[in-house]
Amino acid sequence: MKIDLNCDMGESFGAYTIGRDEEMMPYITSANIACGFHAGDPDVMKRTVHLAAKNGVAIGAHPGFADLSGFGRRDMALSPDEVYAMVVYQIGALAAFAKAEGAALHHVKPHGALYNMASSRADLSRAIASAVADVNPGLILYGLAGSELIKAGKNAGLTTANEVFADRTYAPDGMLTSRRLPNALITNNEEAAAQVVRMVKENKVRATDGTDISINADTICIHGDGAHALSFAQLIRTRLQEEGIHITTVEKEETV
Amino acid sequence: MKIDLNCDMGESFGAYTIGRDEEMMPYITSANIACGFHAGDPDVMKRTVHLAAKNGVAIGAHPGFADLSGFGRRDMALSPDEVYAMVVYQIGALAAFAKAEGAALHHVKPHGALYNMASSRADLSRAIASAVADVNPGLILYGLAGSELIKAGKNAGLTTANEVFADRTYAPDGMLTSRRLPNALITNNEEAAAQVVRMVKENKVRATDGTDISINADTICIHGDGAHALSFAQLIRTRLQEEGIHITTVEKEETV
Amino acid sequence: MKIDLNCDMGESFGAYTIGRDEEMMPYITSANIACGFHAGDPDVMKRTVHLAAKNGVAIGAHPGFADLSGFGRRDMALSPDEVYAMVVYQIGALAAFAKAEGAALHHVKPHGALYNMASSRADLSRAIASAVADVNPGLILYGLAGSELIKAGKNAGLTTANEVFADRTYAPDGMLTSRRLPNALITNNEEAAAQVVRMVKENKVRATDGTDISINADTICIHGDGAHALSFAQLIRTRLQEEGIHITTVEKEETV
Amino acid sequence: MKIDLNCDMGESFGAYTIGRDEEMMPYITSANIACGFHAGDPDVMKRTVHLAAKNGVAIGAHPGFADLSGFGRRDMALSPDEVYAMVVYQIGALAAFAKAEGAALHHVKPHGALYNMASSRADLSRAIASAVADVNPGLILYGLAGSELIKAGKNAGLTTANEVFADRTYAPDGMLTSRRLPNALITNNEEAAAQVVRMVKENKVRATDGTDISINADTICIHGDGAHALSFAQLIRTRLQEEGIHITTVEKEETV
Repeated sequence: MKIDLNCDMGESFGAYTIGRDEEMMPYITSANIACGFHAGDPDVMKRTVHLAAKNGVAIGAHPGFADLSGFGRRDMALSPDEVYAMVVYQIGALAAFAKAEGAALHHVKPHGALYNMASSRADLSRAIASAVADVNPGLILYGLAGSELIKAGKNAGLTTANEVFADRTYAPDGMLTSRRLPNALITNNEEAAAQVVRMVKENKVRATDGTDISINADTICIHGDGAHALSFAQLIRTRLQEEGIHITTVEKEETV
Repeated sequence: MKIDLNCDMGESFGAYTIGRDEEMMPYITSANIACGFHAGDPDVMKRTVHLAAKNGVAIGAHPGFADLSGFGRRDMALSPDEVYAMVVYQIGALAAFAKAEGAALHHVKPHGALYNMASSRADLSRAIASAVADVNPGLILYGLAGSELIKAGKNAGLTTANEVFADRTYAPDGMLTSRRLPNALITNNEEAAAQVVRMVKENKVRATDGTDISINADTICIHGDGAHALSFAQLIRTRLQEEGIHITTVEKEETV
Repeated sequence: MKIDLNCDMGESFGAYTIGRDEEMMPYITSANIACGFHAGDPDVMKRTVHLAAKNGVAIGAHPGFADLSGFGRRDMALSPDEVYAMVVYQIGALAAFAKAEGAALHHVKPHGALYNMASSRADLSRAIASAVADVNPGLILYGLAGSELIKAGKNAGLTTANEVFADRTYAPDGMLTSRRLPNALITNNEEAAAQVVRMVKENKVRATDGTDISINADTICIHGDGAHALSFAQLIRTRLQEEGIHITTVEKEETV
Repeated sequence: MKIDLNCDMGESFGAYTIGRDEEMMPYITSANIACGFHAGDPDVMKRTVHLAAKNGVAIGAHPGFADLSGFGRRDMALSPDEVYAMVVYQIGALAAFAKAEGAALHHVKPHGALYNMASSRADLSRAIASAVADVNPGLILYGLAGSELIKAGKNAGLTTANEVFADRTYAPDGMLTSRRLPNALITNNEEAAAQVVRMVKENKVRATDGTDISINADTICIHGDGAHALSFAQLIRTRLQEEGIHITTVEKEETV
């Protein structure tokens, strides 16, 4: 049994700081690095890629909408062609910093509204998967477990990583409970840790209606800011290790 | 004898159009494609890379300052580290479109104020040359003939291309006459064509003080917009061919 | 009988030009001037306000989403509070140029996706109307005839102007036929002119299902770019004048 | 004897926070609020104007270069016309939030590189002063004590406020010591407070060469971020009050 711990990184911009990247890096195995559209800038990308490489953390591109003031969290009505081009662009920009660092790009995980829209919209998911495959078919596509994005990635011949969330509850259809609902978040850290342990060991999660649903868990999303980010990262590592679960990044499938 | 004809391309942005890229492409051998900072956007980059590939034109990145409203023509006081990161970013973004097109990036030519500042400032030139070499040492660096940028490129182990201008006059020190001076431009097309023919054949140009100065000419900058862009491109091709000068893109030096 | 002819203006940006503002200005009575978010920049705003003032054309703010690469035409999921602040900001910016020109701001017309979203969403319409009223209750709010935006404007105590389109067809509910449908546009200029004459004289328009629907027409939207913009503007003026319809800008209602 | 305490405010942007505006507001008498170019966004501007009004703090526009990633601290080679338009725009945007709040704009203080460039360049200073006077001649122009900007403000008929710095040393010519020099900053808080007390009481400051120079002090710049911002604001208020110096915002001169 094994699992990847991923975290959004490199979200600072110019004089603005978000996230405790340097402190979080030792706890994770995959870094999703912002590419200058919803967050990040060239200097931040350079520093963050260097930091990931130094810590042996897998380097991922984290493309998002060109909406810095909304942090990429607001839906934008882009066409699939526009999404394709935007993703190619951002992957390339981050890959160049990996190259300059003597490292290699490992994965791509869409950010925020793009991630959410791609979870349920097949056309946008195909655009993203094509962009990844066209730039480098060796890249791994991270997406919401069981979502359209995972399907599109498989169809495009990519290795995919089903992402699960420790601190979010699940609807009976396997999607995340909307943040607009009161029961969207798991605020008890031990409960959150227990949820991911079960997802990894049993491939199951208890949905908000009390039923158990199946779920594939290749990678867990850890938050990198907030007061408790570090202590939660430590807790989740401890609980996973107690269960004999190996914490390591996602590997490219050989036969793809 | 041979010479490259390069042109700035992909300068449109969203609903805005600049340049007659489709018409100009058949006349040139190298395209410098804007990377979304001073001009261009992901969709435009995709289209322009495709257009260059279809026409067998060498694909170059044309990085500039993040100043869309100034079209990258206004000096900005960036540090060498900021310039390095900005150039890595833009090269990577364009290279991804080349990759997705099944083509390869061929060269890098800085744009506008970045080009001008790098011509005389060694620190910025070193930053640009390092960025190019770190991303891909096989790329060719285009810069003003005899400038600091050419020196920095050579020092970084890059193949360099000395760029000359058909329609600009030269100061006795080999630099371009400032556009603020009345005699900066050559408005007669035949004179402009004759100037480049002489630069290619004799490695000489008559400076504004009447003296002849030495100049290396690997590539000629052709303008892609304006009413006479196409007719001038045709004229210059004709005059070069009449002299038996082979029009072809710059090649990577083998022993670098 | 009277009618206003309005046109989107000041949509150029930096080195990029859209629209034939100087030529169109004599044909219109209200200019909706882009405010630097979806189009326009401070220099363009200054020039366009001056041009409108010189031609005796009423100066309006034309706020849009901060999406220059999409020209403000792509829906963005902003909250009403975000829309409110964005509209206050853009009105203020344009009003300052009017002030500096010795002129006064006359109206506000939302642009593109913001206009469309506000036509049917009461929450966004209220946000826009509040923004206008809070900055200056003497401003006139232009919106789609009979839309939520017109209602919100009235509720906020603003004078409103029902906008109709010469070259668009209408659905039986009084909304514009979606541009995605084949019959969205009226391409015959005489038909387009006849449609607006009837809207002004009879307050009626033939909908796409062949039925007549009621419509209030205070202002007609004229396009300022495209090959036929000028000739169509001339035609529509001629047809309106032949019917004895006075072409003049919208006036503030006295009793509001 | 009286003095104004001003502080840069509203420098947050979207998800990014800079400054402790809410805590600092009670200590100051003038707020220079960022206008969305180098920092700030419409939502932040709205909140900050409200906060200033609630605390009875004078509301000022703080226009800067459109360089969010450089926080407006990098020189940009804009023409005077471009600076003029950029300043009109930003003043207008902020004035609209003041209007919507039921408050009035009080002053304008350029930010960062624009402030520094205007201190010594008469052409840019004239452009800024004209922009302020054209939008509203009742606004007060804040600038470096004795600088070109103050001169241009007076020439444009504006009330001006000579700004002095508590924690910066002065060169013998009355300009600030460059931050590149080791002795640019006063790190001892009591020394900094003593410097401003003397500037207010005696109109003198000891320059870096040990000589006393004359200086007019109408307003003191206080920093709003950093660990010691609050304690230093408290200290400086205490020291000023101990000397019987009245802390109040700058007033418009009646006879201007």
